[in-house]
Amino acid sequence: MNRQKIKIFDSTLRDGAQAEGISFTIEDKIRVLEALDILGVDYVEAGNPGSNQKDMEFFQRTRDMELKNVSLTAFGSTRRVNIFVEDDQNVKALLLAQTPSVTIFGKAWDFHVTDVLKTTREENLKMIEDTIKFFIENNKDVVFDAEHFFDGHKADKEYALEVCRVAANAGASAIVLCDTNGGTMPYTILNATKDCVEICKSCNSVDVGIHCHNDTGMAVANSMMAVEAGARHVQGTMNGFGERCGNADLSSIIPNLQLKLNYLCIPEENMLSITEISRKISEIANIKHNERAPYVGKSSFAHKAGMHIDGVNKNASSFEHLNPELVGNERRFLMSEQAGRSLILKKVNKIEPRLTKESPETVDIINTVKRLEHQGYKFESAEASFELHVRKVLGYYNPFFQLKHFKVTVDEPKPDGSFSSTAMIKVEVGDKEEIAAAEGDGPVNALDKALRKVLLGFYPQLHEMYLTDYKVRVIENTDTTAAKVRVLIQSTNGSQTWSTVGVSTDIIEASWIALVDSIEYSLIKSNTKNL
Amino acid sequence: MNRQKIKIFDSTLRDGAQAEGISFTIEDKIRVLEALDILGVDYVEAGNPGSNQKDMEFFQRTRDMELKNVSLTAFGSTRRVNIFVEDDQNVKALLLAQTPSVTIFGKAWDFHVTDVLKTTREENLKMIEDTIKFFIENNKDVVFDAEHFFDGHKADKEYALEVCRVAANAGASAIVLCDTNGGTMPYTILNATKDCVEICKSCNSVDVGIHCHNDTGMAVANSMMAVEAGARHVQGTMNGFGERCGNADLSSIIPNLQLKLNYLCIPEENMLSITEISRKISEIANIKHNERAPYVGKSSFAHKAGMHIDGVNKNASSFEHLNPELVGNERRFLMSEQAGRSLILKKVNKIEPRLTKESPETVDIINTVKRLEHQGYKFESAEASFELHVRKVLGYYNPFFQLKHFKVTVDEPKPDGSFSSTAMIKVEVGDKEEIAAAEGDGPVNALDKALRKVLLGFYPQLHEMYLTDYKVRVIENTDTTAAKVRVLIQSTNGSQTWSTVGVSTDIIEASWIALVDSIEYSLIKSNTKNL
Repeated sequence: MNRQKIKIFDSTLRDGAQAEGISFTIEDKIRVLEALDILGVDYVEAGNPGSNQKDMEFFQRTRDMELKNVSLTAFGSTRRVNIFVEDDQNVKALLLAQTPSVTIFGKAWDFHVTDVLKTTREENLKMIEDTIKFFIENNKDVVFDAEHFFDGHKADKEYALEVCRVAANAGASAIVLCDTNGGTMPYTILNATKDCVEICKSCNSVDVGIHCHNDTGMAVANSMMAVEAGARHVQGTMNGFGERCGNADLSSIIPNLQLKLNYLCIPEENMLSITEISRKISEIANIKHNERAPYVGKSSFAHKAGMHIDGVNKNASSFEHLNPELVGNERRFLMSEQAGRSLILKKVNKIEPRLTKESPETVDIINTVKRLEHQGYKFESAEASFELHVRKVLGYYNPFFQLKHFKVTVDEPKPDGSFSSTAMIKVEVGDKEEIAAAEGDGPVNALDKALRKVLLGFYPQLHEMYLTDYKVRVIENTDTTAAKVRVLIQSTNGSQTWSTVGVSTDIIEASWIALVDSIEYSLIKSNTKNL
Repeated sequence: MNRQKIKIFDSTLRDGAQAEGISFTIEDKIRVLEALDILGVDYVEAGNPGSNQKDMEFFQRTRDMELKNVSLTAFGSTRRVNIFVEDDQNVKALLLAQTPSVTIFGKAWDFHVTDVLKTTREENLKMIEDTIKFFIENNKDVVFDAEHFFDGHKADKEYALEVCRVAANAGASAIVLCDTNGGTMPYTILNATKDCVEICKSCNSVDVGIHCHNDTGMAVANSMMAVEAGARHVQGTMNGFGERCGNADLSSIIPNLQLKLNYLCIPEENMLSITEISRKISEIANIKHNERAPYVGKSSFAHKAGMHIDGVNKNASSFEHLNPELVGNERRFLMSEQAGRSLILKKVNKIEPRLTKESPETVDIINTVKRLEHQGYKFESAEASFELHVRKVLGYYNPFFQLKHFKVTVDEPKPDGSFSSTAMIKVEVGDKEEIAAAEGDGPVNALDKALRKVLLGFYPQLHEMYLTDYKVRVIENTDTTAAKVRVLIQSTNGSQTWSTVGVSTDIIEASWIALVDSIEYSLIKSNTKNL
């Protein structure tokens, strides 16, 4: 069967950049563009060169970039009221951006025309027509965003549709219906989109598109409803980044359309990398990736209820709507009291296969886990610390060193105003004592360096190991600066990666606990004599 | 007009507790129940007494609680295969819970009956019928969850509907259609729900209900579609907490149904507290509240694009789908390069009304903000630090003290294994020097105490001020423990609250910067001589 194509228009770099907390540098934007090109979306809307100098610089920098899949597009408004299109500063800026495509927005809600633009309904149509024609004459592919289309359709349906008709006749390749305020219901989206699809039938090369915001939590579903009504171009952002509640999330929409409804959005083989690309873009934006995000989240295929775990073990489709591998994600089983003993036992059996659910050691381990969870520990993402606790309960653990003393000092400002952190550590290994000191960027960094230094003579294999991630979370806000913190550390030896956790009211102590776990885990893995 | 009632069934404490990272104590559960009762939902499903001892304890503890609005319900499965209902352990546990209502789940997908339960289709119907009748005889209000209804409807429509018919005839007050795996499309939900509504018409007192999961990002819209099809009972969780991608988010669904479609879900006046209750429940669950959450998020009515801010200033409805006050939320304008000078000027004019967009001081301020943002600062939620920076640029700032020296020490483990943190601070105020030291739970707590102590003799008004929140975020993960951290501090003097920010690779330095800003802002507000 020939699959119907839906064009995917990504606005992470334009509408996504309106999100609270997001501020892309030009370098960031280039990395996002590269990732989206690998994913294989059709358009990347990357900025508004008329209103933002940094966006103009971005378009200059990317002029010679070779893109495999993406048509780069610059965003801007129609010409202003009562001005020749070629004299409009914003229109000039769009031309200067030298992108193959431009995305022009114009008003489709009569209230905005008269009350925000303060012009006539006729002049608004003329502004749209003039601007699109101008760019068509300049050999651009023009996407037209009918701003506030759905509110306009409700207020004055004929006018909203006239805006679409004018834009289609002027030569736009897509008429994109925007739910700018994000308040429209799925049913209304369906019916109003059908009206525009009907109008556009006479222009055989124009696509109807959809652009939703998530203010009622339905941006993804609203986009799906528009496709149901005949839309063939979907705008959104990766991870739903965007102003207020965000835009329609392409990392949900693309799998929904392609894997559930058999449309073609991106090259089939690229679906396997959508999880990785979604997470990478969160990382570039420096926004914590939404663990609960459909398809691409860390928890999206994580099972905790004992009953669900049993079901999935019997037959994955009993509690999973999709095979996680299809989107490059993975199934996970979580530890918790609800998961029951069977999951903990499964993990314990990797260390000691003889234990059963009823063994007293298993009960001890479960009690230890509960006690630590009560203190604020979480082992869901710190399996190395979990394994160390199991070993301690089972007696399969010999400490690799004894801490004799450490001291961390953050001292008076230096002449340049900066702070100085030092750590001194004294340890005992066997019958030998060793002491070392290090200076670092902050007390935790100093401690990490000093601990490595003091142990290296005893355990040269620590050379290969280093930290790859360090996270701090305040877990009780009641006592303010005396609140507990949970520190999560990720480490690697190049081939394996492991995570450890420490909890304390003292960030230094919490970091110390996680650092020691990380080093001990590394030594256990490289030194099976310890078993 | 008589508004149609939709019953709201909250499962935050049962299905919500399946979320990765959530682990409610009994105390937590009681606080959530109280909050939901204040909100005014109809049912609170609070646990599974048959499979979790802690849940049974919860039901014992809450037996005498007086609830204004909520009917408390305990969750469990039908009797097991080939056993008398009164002999089933789980059924007994449900009775012991002594709740006015019980929620029984049974299989509506033939594949689950034969492949997971490994029984016959007839026995499954009998299990459902026996169990519901048993609880009706025991004077319970019975809600029946038709697990996997939509997958079942697809696989064998007649059987799935037969399950509903049997449950309705046995006396259940609601037949709840569950999209257990969360993979169903809005259209399918609509049509399958209509089938069940049709079946239930002959039982005049039974409601059709809906229970959605968010695995395709459409749980809210799917719930809305079911209501469109005639469902009058909606299950979900606050903030969408739940296994995998979460459950349908009641904090979106309730305003959607009540404010957009004029149904009655909760007492009208309670809508004003939905934002507060949603945030409180996140706090109890110790999950960061989703800032982008529809209606109740911190960013949900936050405007960043200059054009949008201008529009909202002219007429709020131009870029807002709803008045944020209706849900107890508020409009915010964010500072950023895109917001342009006008917003920064608005804030600057509060301090110095004479400045214009073109004043060199305004340009200086914008450049300062940009430089600091580049270093990792964010002023969106730290307006007190922003004001201090503006004052510094304008020369409206005299430091309240000079730091001469400080030293923070975290020393060797004490005999009990704990760590000791001390801070010593020496400051100069005018021509006087003063020195103080303090011990604390961790270095930041010690520093906070010592700073307050050393300044109190000079500024007794600091007595009234204290910290209410302390947050740490690692903002660059590349250098691991040497990564930059951003510290956000919230302080209050009892009547006003303000937030400050500090950034450094050193957590002590970042905390110090935010602490000093917080104290200086407090002194400025209590001491207008400084202006």
